[in-house]
Amino acid sequence: MAVQVGILGATGAVGQRFIQLLDGHPTFEIAALTASESSAGKTYREAAKWRVETQIPEEIAEMEVGATTPEAVSDDVDLLFSSLPSSVASEVEPEFLEAGHIISSNSLNDRMADDVPLTIPEINPDHLGLIEVQRDNRGWDGALIKNPNCSTITMVPTLAALDEFGLDRVDVTTLQAVSGAGYSGVTSMEIIDNAIPHIGGEESKMESESRKLLGGFDGAELSMHESTVNASCNRIPTLDGHLESLFVDLADEPTPEEARAAMREYPGADLPSAPEQLIHVFGDDEPDRPQPRMDRSRENGMQISAGGVASTDSGLKYNCLAHNTIRGAAGASLLNGELLVEGGWI
Amino acid sequence: MAVQVGILGATGAVGQRFIQLLDGHPTFEIAALTASESSAGKTYREAAKWRVETQIPEEIAEMEVGATTPEAVSDDVDLLFSSLPSSVASEVEPEFLEAGHIISSNSLNDRMADDVPLTIPEINPDHLGLIEVQRDNRGWDGALIKNPNCSTITMVPTLAALDEFGLDRVDVTTLQAVSGAGYSGVTSMEIIDNAIPHIGGEESKMESESRKLLGGFDGAELSMHESTVNASCNRIPTLDGHLESLFVDLADEPTPEEARAAMREYPGADLPSAPEQLIHVFGDDEPDRPQPRMDRSRENGMQISAGGVASTDSGLKYNCLAHNTIRGAAGASLLNGELLVEGGWI
Amino acid sequence: MAVQVGILGATGAVGQRFIQLLDGHPTFEIAALTASESSAGKTYREAAKWRVETQIPEEIAEMEVGATTPEAVSDDVDLLFSSLPSSVASEVEPEFLEAGHIISSNSLNDRMADDVPLTIPEINPDHLGLIEVQRDNRGWDGALIKNPNCSTITMVPTLAALDEFGLDRVDVTTLQAVSGAGYSGVTSMEIIDNAIPHIGGEESKMESESRKLLGGFDGAELSMHESTVNASCNRIPTLDGHLESLFVDLADEPTPEEARAAMREYPGADLPSAPEQLIHVFGDDEPDRPQPRMDRSRENGMQISAGGVASTDSGLKYNCLAHNTIRGAAGASLLNGELLVEGGWI
Amino acid sequence: MAVQVGILGATGAVGQRFIQLLDGHPTFEIAALTASESSAGKTYREAAKWRVETQIPEEIAEMEVGATTPEAVSDDVDLLFSSLPSSVASEVEPEFLEAGHIISSNSLNDRMADDVPLTIPEINPDHLGLIEVQRDNRGWDGALIKNPNCSTITMVPTLAALDEFGLDRVDVTTLQAVSGAGYSGVTSMEIIDNAIPHIGGEESKMESESRKLLGGFDGAELSMHESTVNASCNRIPTLDGHLESLFVDLADEPTPEEARAAMREYPGADLPSAPEQLIHVFGDDEPDRPQPRMDRSRENGMQISAGGVASTDSGLKYNCLAHNTIRGAAGASLLNGELLVEGGWI
Repeated sequence: MAVQVGILGATGAVGQRFIQLLDGHPTFEIAALTASESSAGKTYREAAKWRVETQIPEEIAEMEVGATTPEAVSDDVDLLFSSLPSSVASEVEPEFLEAGHIISSNSLNDRMADDVPLTIPEINPDHLGLIEVQRDNRGWDGALIKNPNCSTITMVPTLAALDEFGLDRVDVTTLQAVSGAGYSGVTSMEIIDNAIPHIGGEESKMESESRKLLGGFDGAELSMHESTVNASCNRIPTLDGHLESLFVDLADEPTPEEARAAMREYPGADLPSAPEQLIHVFGDDEPDRPQPRMDRSRENGMQISAGGVASTDSGLKYNCLAHNTIRGAAGASLLNGELLVEGGWI
Repeated sequence: MAVQVGILGATGAVGQRFIQLLDGHPTFEIAALTASESSAGKTYREAAKWRVETQIPEEIAEMEVGATTPEAVSDDVDLLFSSLPSSVASEVEPEFLEAGHIISSNSLNDRMADDVPLTIPEINPDHLGLIEVQRDNRGWDGALIKNPNCSTITMVPTLAALDEFGLDRVDVTTLQAVSGAGYSGVTSMEIIDNAIPHIGGEESKMESESRKLLGGFDGAELSMHESTVNASCNRIPTLDGHLESLFVDLADEPTPEEARAAMREYPGADLPSAPEQLIHVFGDDEPDRPQPRMDRSRENGMQISAGGVASTDSGLKYNCLAHNTIRGAAGASLLNGELLVEGGWI
Repeated sequence: MAVQVGILGATGAVGQRFIQLLDGHPTFEIAALTASESSAGKTYREAAKWRVETQIPEEIAEMEVGATTPEAVSDDVDLLFSSLPSSVASEVEPEFLEAGHIISSNSLNDRMADDVPLTIPEINPDHLGLIEVQRDNRGWDGALIKNPNCSTITMVPTLAALDEFGLDRVDVTTLQAVSGAGYSGVTSMEIIDNAIPHIGGEESKMESESRKLLGGFDGAELSMHESTVNASCNRIPTLDGHLESLFVDLADEPTPEEARAAMREYPGADLPSAPEQLIHVFGDDEPDRPQPRMDRSRENGMQISAGGVASTDSGLKYNCLAHNTIRGAAGASLLNGELLVEGGWI
Repeated sequence: MAVQVGILGATGAVGQRFIQLLDGHPTFEIAALTASESSAGKTYREAAKWRVETQIPEEIAEMEVGATTPEAVSDDVDLLFSSLPSSVASEVEPEFLEAGHIISSNSLNDRMADDVPLTIPEINPDHLGLIEVQRDNRGWDGALIKNPNCSTITMVPTLAALDEFGLDRVDVTTLQAVSGAGYSGVTSMEIIDNAIPHIGGEESKMESESRKLLGGFDGAELSMHESTVNASCNRIPTLDGHLESLFVDLADEPTPEEARAAMREYPGADLPSAPEQLIHVFGDDEPDRPQPRMDRSRENGMQISAGGVASTDSGLKYNCLAHNTIRGAAGASLLNGELLVEGGWI
């Protein structure tokens, strides 16, 4: 039977991606769309300035948008996706949780909280067990689950695959697409023929979220992964697709071929929106890949790509890439929602 | 009295920059322009498809272009600048050297040869002493001096400034402009809304040239600097200006402020085309600088910029930037030419 | 039963689009791929540097590429698509035609010949009757049919729709994507932060081809449409999608609403790859459309878009858009192939 | 003796251009800088986010910014430049005018008023005579003079030059740079790999302003030029420099060479910031010029460029280009200020 889902903040850039990704979903059915007070009561077509290249699904276009309050969302909604600005989410998400809702959220707030699972289904599905801790702590009937930041999610699958060789240190530099800042986040005057070597708060997110994702969970408590992660974040003139360059120190000394094999063979998840293969790895015959425009849409934008694997004195260097508004945002929350269903939480 | 200079490969992209930079030079006077056989005999205006935003100096436009052979260049020419493709340069430069010419060359060939000075005037002017070794070895009356690759030259001044803190390891990722590949090197279909995580041969150039530049010279022999340099090179959609992100391990533990001071105070060179200050350092109040379009033209494109300095567990991270076809190519050779004059080699 | 098709010049940019568009085609089956002598004998994967964002269909990747000669193509092939450079096509196409092949060609040569149909299926399918004239004239068993240039095809459907109001004069300015010049046709140094107000030969193609397409055919002879067409062609930094701005003088004085209705209601073709609606027309509520990136992929890149319709003293002004390498090249030839099948020529 | 000038709205994009252009001006000296209430009392460095590639002049950086009210500006200021948003300007400019100030304004409001001179010094300096009419009408001691919109100013000099051949009709399509919309006017998500065929209000500005500029003034009243002007405006991914494609109907039938000569020989103005030659005209040997990036900075961004002149049935087609934030905005107001001084109004 269909799972009824709602989208909090449905008119924004990530909200539009949710709608695009949910179109034709095998089990999820959109039952509620919320936005700011000023949009409540309008049809979705009126409320949203649709900017995705594919058309708005007709039945969604005619749905009425509600306010972002528990009162405006029916109790029949089984699962909420949240792509609210974190300043709003930090106020509103708790209200929904107290009202018993289950939220798969893309927003920044609470990602690093001790009792909130920060999850990539293929990497750390066991962290969902934290929901019990969360319910004990907070007295909620609902549950809050977060996905990491887009730049974190791009590299963590490759790090998880390499952890079998003893991951010790990561120096990562990002080349991030403008869509990561939202529709109006980067002006054209800033970025045409230019790059910006700073994205506020992004480096510390990558450094902390990645270690939480790779950390252990003993059924009661999380432990952070013991590696050191140093990040340097840059904005470049690409629309979608974050490209990242990594130098990793590994206790063991895998050959590039062993590293590629570890990435290729890293297991995926058996969820409707998960890619068949989690990481596509380019070999030495295609040294100029992955590229944002050529590779961001592999497996509907849900696959990670890696390439350029080579040895260094203390480990490896390589590049990786993911579609930041699909795999790195709306698709990440969607996958977490599917994981909640599979795990019986919904 | 004016020094008569010639430009080998004067019609190409770097050749055009030489002409732009030499316009109004206090001591250098263009006396010879060479190009391929098919251009010989034409005026420069006819032979070159001029693509620099400023106009061709009128007297240069009317000069006759000669073939790139010693016979076609007068003995009165005191100094040659070479921006030939390295496949051509490796054949032609030796002919000029045997004929007694002094060449300041931007071409790749021979940069890593034991008896060829690879020089940035502010960093290792003493390496010019290798010319004596070179003359002994090769029996030339002339002399060959090289400048490093544009991506190397962007970071080495900052590394030289930090070496007082015990430079041990560098992980550097570049965001390089398309002009670095020459006028037709990167097609628009490749790079619009895209980035390319591979530039053939670039990473090994950065890894070896930087260690030669930072190395010592005891009057007879060069020694390579003992640090480890790992490079990852990317092309992005910018016209000019290479931006680089560095993680450096340092034996001492300078604070960011001490590191900024070391860079700011690193001495410049007293040469006509040298910037007053070698490295402009942005502080924490301007975390989004340097940027390629905003900062590449500081001090006529001859100044290096740095910013985003912050501590890591094992040292520092920061960004740096230089104009790749000025400071990183034509301007680098020009400055080396000025160093040869100052040192009395011409 | 499946129609066996071949692609002449299968490794180029338009050739790759043919393969992408033919993937999953209901009646056409790729039976032959040709390229230059140096590629003959290789698999398609080896011969082509694949640059389309979707993956190469696996069975095509393993097909052997043949030389572009009649001997190398089996007689069982029913229909050839040609995307050869026109210098090659003008020599090679006649050889195939003499050998009895039917060619739907995107190449420039012979487009304006009196006995060669230049066809857009929705506009002038009756011109196919010229094949009889062509066979009489040339003594061929085969047949040659051409589609117009990409910039022509973008505007002609809208002109055909407005012709009921007495089309008298067209002043058209194009904003063309870089892919129109082929993969390496426009360098990044030329076009980043720039536009080029000249595309060699393009203006005269638009001026003559459009009048041939809109002209009459009495069963024996073509007549050119009597309007005046003035074109000014520009290259801008977009990847795909030609945007055109038109001022048209019309004998009658339709209102913008009448003009929009005429475009919307202009009949499509009942062919497998034809769009359901030929022209999508944006109204006054969306004055900033069509846009290349947002609208080029409507109906798989086969639909024309128009918008901004407004009155002038002597007629109308408006914009139109089409995907230049799909509707304007490979898709145009494909549609002409489907028209040949429907008309019983194959 | 130096003329004391003030800049209303000094911190915005055009305001920054004023400061850049006034740096080193032979007769104008900046004596007042105004901005919004929230900036009043700060130094200019603090109040402005400086985004011009050249550095802020040091003495300007330390100047105190005042509020945009007559009280905050000393009576010793002889001339005000205004680059206020037109919503603000329409309220504030009258206050300054009543207080006796003379304003050279770039803002939209009042451009088409019967008693406000809309002036390009090289085209219609005699329209300054309207100031007498304005003073009579409004009872002001001051005076208000406007320059046209950037897209208008780009084409009008070429139209003025061709008017000797009997200018009858103009169909113009623009390819406009993003800076024309202000620093944050066009987001990167809108314009990368895209073009937008709509700029609100721009087409009617071009259609009316150009006819006012080319119109006559009999000492008492203005008359609009009798030609028809149809405009279609597009935004493209260029930073600076509006490129325009024109089809003009002319009563006489000049050859392209005669048209080029008329443009080349059109007289300039003898003012400090005026270009030596008003219109640079490219011949048939450079058919791909003018280009925004290559030609926008000719004569410090104050020269118009034209090219691609060719005959049509009813006249000519050609392209023209100007730097929109210099010649088309701050430089236009500056030149009008110089004209006021030369004419003895200051």
